[in-house]
Amino acid sequence: MSARFTNANAIRALAMDAVQQAKSGHPGMPMGMADIAEVLWNDHLKHNPNNPKWPDRDRFIISNGHGSMLQYALLHLSGYDVSIDDLKNFRQLHSKTPGHPEYGYTPGIETTTGPLGQGLANAVGMAIAEKTLAAQFNKGDHNIVDHHTYVFLGDGCLMEGISHEVCSLAGTLGLGKLIAFYDDNGISIDGEVHGWFTDDTPKRFEAYGWQVIPNVNGHDPVEIQMALETAQKETNRPTLICCKTVIGFGAPTKAGKEECHGAPLGDAEIAGTREKLGWPHAPFVVPNEIYAAWNAKEKGAKLEAEWQKRFEAYRAAYPELADEFLRRIEGELPAHFSEHAQAYIKEVNEKAATIASRKASENSINALAPALPELLGGSADLAGSNLTIWKGTKGISAENADGNYLYYGVREFGMSAIMNGIALHGGFIPYGGTFLIFMEYARNAVRMSALMKQRVIYVYTHDSIGLGEDGPTHQPIEQLNNLRGTPNMTVWRPADAVESAVAWFAAVKNKQGPSALVFSRQNLPHQQRNETQIAEIAQGAYVLSDSNGTPELILIATGSEVSLAMDAAKALREQGKNVRVVSMPSSNVFDAQSDEYRESVLPSSVRKRIAIEAGHTDFWFKYVGLDGRVIGMQSFGESAPGGALFKHFGFTVENIVSTANELLK
Amino acid sequence: MSARFTNANAIRALAMDAVQQAKSGHPGMPMGMADIAEVLWNDHLKHNPNNPKWPDRDRFIISNGHGSMLQYALLHLSGYDVSIDDLKNFRQLHSKTPGHPEYGYTPGIETTTGPLGQGLANAVGMAIAEKTLAAQFNKGDHNIVDHHTYVFLGDGCLMEGISHEVCSLAGTLGLGKLIAFYDDNGISIDGEVHGWFTDDTPKRFEAYGWQVIPNVNGHDPVEIQMALETAQKETNRPTLICCKTVIGFGAPTKAGKEECHGAPLGDAEIAGTREKLGWPHAPFVVPNEIYAAWNAKEKGAKLEAEWQKRFEAYRAAYPELADEFLRRIEGELPAHFSEHAQAYIKEVNEKAATIASRKASENSINALAPALPELLGGSADLAGSNLTIWKGTKGISAENADGNYLYYGVREFGMSAIMNGIALHGGFIPYGGTFLIFMEYARNAVRMSALMKQRVIYVYTHDSIGLGEDGPTHQPIEQLNNLRGTPNMTVWRPADAVESAVAWFAAVKNKQGPSALVFSRQNLPHQQRNETQIAEIAQGAYVLSDSNGTPELILIATGSEVSLAMDAAKALREQGKNVRVVSMPSSNVFDAQSDEYRESVLPSSVRKRIAIEAGHTDFWFKYVGLDGRVIGMQSFGESAPGGALFKHFGFTVENIVSTANELLK
Repeated sequence: MSARFTNANAIRALAMDAVQQAKSGHPGMPMGMADIAEVLWNDHLKHNPNNPKWPDRDRFIISNGHGSMLQYALLHLSGYDVSIDDLKNFRQLHSKTPGHPEYGYTPGIETTTGPLGQGLANAVGMAIAEKTLAAQFNKGDHNIVDHHTYVFLGDGCLMEGISHEVCSLAGTLGLGKLIAFYDDNGISIDGEVHGWFTDDTPKRFEAYGWQVIPNVNGHDPVEIQMALETAQKETNRPTLICCKTVIGFGAPTKAGKEECHGAPLGDAEIAGTREKLGWPHAPFVVPNEIYAAWNAKEKGAKLEAEWQKRFEAYRAAYPELADEFLRRIEGELPAHFSEHAQAYIKEVNEKAATIASRKASENSINALAPALPELLGGSADLAGSNLTIWKGTKGISAENADGNYLYYGVREFGMSAIMNGIALHGGFIPYGGTFLIFMEYARNAVRMSALMKQRVIYVYTHDSIGLGEDGPTHQPIEQLNNLRGTPNMTVWRPADAVESAVAWFAAVKNKQGPSALVFSRQNLPHQQRNETQIAEIAQGAYVLSDSNGTPELILIATGSEVSLAMDAAKALREQGKNVRVVSMPSSNVFDAQSDEYRESVLPSSVRKRIAIEAGHTDFWFKYVGLDGRVIGMQSFGESAPGGALFKHFGFTVENIVSTANELLK
Repeated sequence: MSARFTNANAIRALAMDAVQQAKSGHPGMPMGMADIAEVLWNDHLKHNPNNPKWPDRDRFIISNGHGSMLQYALLHLSGYDVSIDDLKNFRQLHSKTPGHPEYGYTPGIETTTGPLGQGLANAVGMAIAEKTLAAQFNKGDHNIVDHHTYVFLGDGCLMEGISHEVCSLAGTLGLGKLIAFYDDNGISIDGEVHGWFTDDTPKRFEAYGWQVIPNVNGHDPVEIQMALETAQKETNRPTLICCKTVIGFGAPTKAGKEECHGAPLGDAEIAGTREKLGWPHAPFVVPNEIYAAWNAKEKGAKLEAEWQKRFEAYRAAYPELADEFLRRIEGELPAHFSEHAQAYIKEVNEKAATIASRKASENSINALAPALPELLGGSADLAGSNLTIWKGTKGISAENADGNYLYYGVREFGMSAIMNGIALHGGFIPYGGTFLIFMEYARNAVRMSALMKQRVIYVYTHDSIGLGEDGPTHQPIEQLNNLRGTPNMTVWRPADAVESAVAWFAAVKNKQGPSALVFSRQNLPHQQRNETQIAEIAQGAYVLSDSNGTPELILIATGSEVSLAMDAAKALREQGKNVRVVSMPSSNVFDAQSDEYRESVLPSSVRKRIAIEAGHTDFWFKYVGLDGRVIGMQSFGESAPGGALFKHFGFTVENIVSTANELLK
């Protein structure tokens, strides 16, 4: 029996035993891809188990994330801080080994996968980040950024639409250091895929401009080795290596069948597998010589030391660039960035312009980006509408990656998952635009930004029925609430240019998760604020306008409805009513403030409250309760000029005033 | 000048004039695709302007829906009830001519498009429906179902991931009567597509098993004609006709450029276009001879009369099948279906089983489907988990379309948009399963079901952290609320097998829109109910258990949390508390009940309320207000056994009881 085969069997055994112990999980993929992983990890992968955060490590991702035990076994065997006890705790609460790879839970896990196709998209993002970071920092012979991105994927990933979006773009961008292994085992959950998946996948990827290496025997280390070398030699195109494999390789009766995909093999089958593979060791026992064969700590330390030496040479030649590189990798903002941003906010306030908040967003990017070279912008083919291009924009292309902007094409889901990959890689703060409604095309990638707490900035314009004639397919209703209800997501819907600038600054500063910046197509009037109020914007909600004494009525509004609320308050005050107007650009940020602050803005004794937002009503009962009212949307929109729609759906001073008077009766 | 060219110019002129009048819209696509549309509509399309609902008409869809003026011009010119005044009202409130084609607003519009790629997916769904309906009803020489589906699409549709999902499946299913025209104009909103879209599209579609006709001059009627004939001859594969076109064809300075894509051309350019095209007529004026050339009313009446004759012959030979065909096309349920369903609900109640609601769903399908041959099921590769297969399931394949189940593969978005197409075609009630979390992959198609009010049934299993070990990527948190906040969508989250059966019956009956049936992975105990309570389930919420007199506390719960609420109520009553338990399987349905009924369930005087749901808290303030509490989720889940997670996140009797006692203090 070859050493390679025995090494691979260690993965197979750990995977089947851990799944059996957890009484749930997916043994099939790890057992099928073990031989591929063995060649890649033992002969090619540039990494250092002692330092999973070494910036120039190769990135390794399993897009078919249900095969998490493959990756946990690899991390354990090669010397990461993943113990045999961690493997025994597979799928248990607070373990390092959750059911799917979860970023932040386990050293060496580069991204959270499980939702199919997205790991592949993250890998494309990482390869873009590598290529662009290299173009920005490498100088002459100094290659401080020079690593591969390897990704494993299965039939499921290839069926998902996102695989089309990102592989098409990867071809266009010529990502030569992206190497994908297709686990072509012919099986998905419903059985043999030929009933629902008959693509000529090599041809499909050739159509994208990839190098394709077809018909590799995924259980033959020599063929895998040759394919890998061919892949590495190609520097102008991404490579897809199509590996024929047997799912659950080694299982005597279940190999090659769906039964081994997503359930424990069972004791008898496991015993048979041990025999068949010639793996006599007890569950969770790996002989020392096999650990020794796998251990990559020494090799990894050496690799990183060599890089460190190169980096020191770089630092000697380009001291400022070296510091800048480290700053960017750490994700720290430039010194004095905060002062810069505050000065800009002050300037916007003084200008007091009436502009669309999408225009205010463009202005903010123009103001912040020159001081923030890590900003990596883009739009899903709506640059002119989202206003995501700034004066210093340089597009990234296959030939020249030294830019700061990606033309993502009409690929919202791909864009969002690629931004996750870029953020995870490090060195960049990605932002990307689309219409708020088309957040839905990308929805699960947006959730993944939040789950992984990545600093990704979503620029969502055309935020309500106010966009007008494009009609209900383009008019968001329920989208804002969906974003607000996503844990770790911070949503901003600014009322004017000042709030827009504050929102942009907050998003850039927020290292704890993604931000969704929601902007209008139409003009929004400037609101007068004193310095305290300007400072309070950053608390998510604040009193924008007050009467004397305790208010009898509070109007709460966001974005384009704030000026309406202000006009209505004026009319009500003329009727002698004591009215407060609260602007709430970010309910998420407001909810995180102290009880005292929240009570100061929304005193619990004041129960007559009206929330006004051109979005779905349901969310606002959280702030107005059973005694308040919500002026919002409960139907889809219509196609008509925006002004006509605001009137049609009751977003008028008259309606607010009459609702207030009913409430105050 | 050829007559064909003049005919096509009528479209160009109407499109540019209507956009100019509306001061917004997209002239480029109609002007670019006018020649293709002219050949298709005047020489091939089988339709009857007098009866847009003739069941055997060809279906025509523009997936690049921003080019709506193309379709409005075609409908107007060929004789549909779309007047010149309607065209003058393009994009105005309550017009027949909204910014994008909207199903239900305009005779002859087969589906709502605009969100790119989905029209193509709907077309695939319609072609599946045609093929399966034909297989189910055509007998011998009697071909009562025999029509094509034609779809126009642009670069944007092809970049979207959904185009991959549905075209891959269309190839697998051998949809020979699906003919797609690719408007290969080289332009998208960000400019010339070669910077972000370099696919070899013909090769890509060959990889899917399509017939591809490349390099057709989209302005040459002879080439278009030949391509169409080649397409129609192929009966085993769908066809993609790749047409090279010039966007905004005829515009003197803007043709071929992005400027004519999404904005009015302007008076000067329009004047120049008139000159260049040799179209001297005033805006909205079409000479009578051109109307005559386009008018399809006589031809259409004849075509339908011929079909009617065929149908009568069919009726003579197969009277019962003919009636059944008409019933299915009308979307009426079978006679006595209601009694059948009620009897089943009674039976389930008597069985009083403790089973997972996904299992209860499977049982319901098994009970209802034999009486409901229009049910067309499927799952996005999760049949064994969603339990969407019933005893009478027959898979649909390229070779045999006479089935009732689609193996959609791992294509949630494609599945959902295909179901929209199937529902729109008529003759079927589609249902399709995936995990609730992966609703997000399909999110905008689900919204489109709701916008178009289509009877599509979504079967969403694995509905909360209760699914356990698969972890946060698989555990829904904010998804239920997202569905509930979608206008026209009815969400059901049943508490046990009885509520599950009622939910299925309600979904089948609901012709006003889609239903989302949300089911648990884990077992749920049977709840005791009297007959009134069983009947009240259909009202969306009802008192499941009450104390004597006015309650001091109301516990509101759904799905898996209802039994928890019942246990907590028991404990609280033992402490002498007067507690009501409300089960709310469908907030959407409950909200639509009378004020009286809602007041009887949730008396407004009772403000001490606790909502309990293993989903995001925000939604529930609508029912508990500022004085109540919500026991729900505000973070993502974790990977661990479901029981451990319920405990970890506070879904315990102890937590409900202590929260209640705090509230009652």
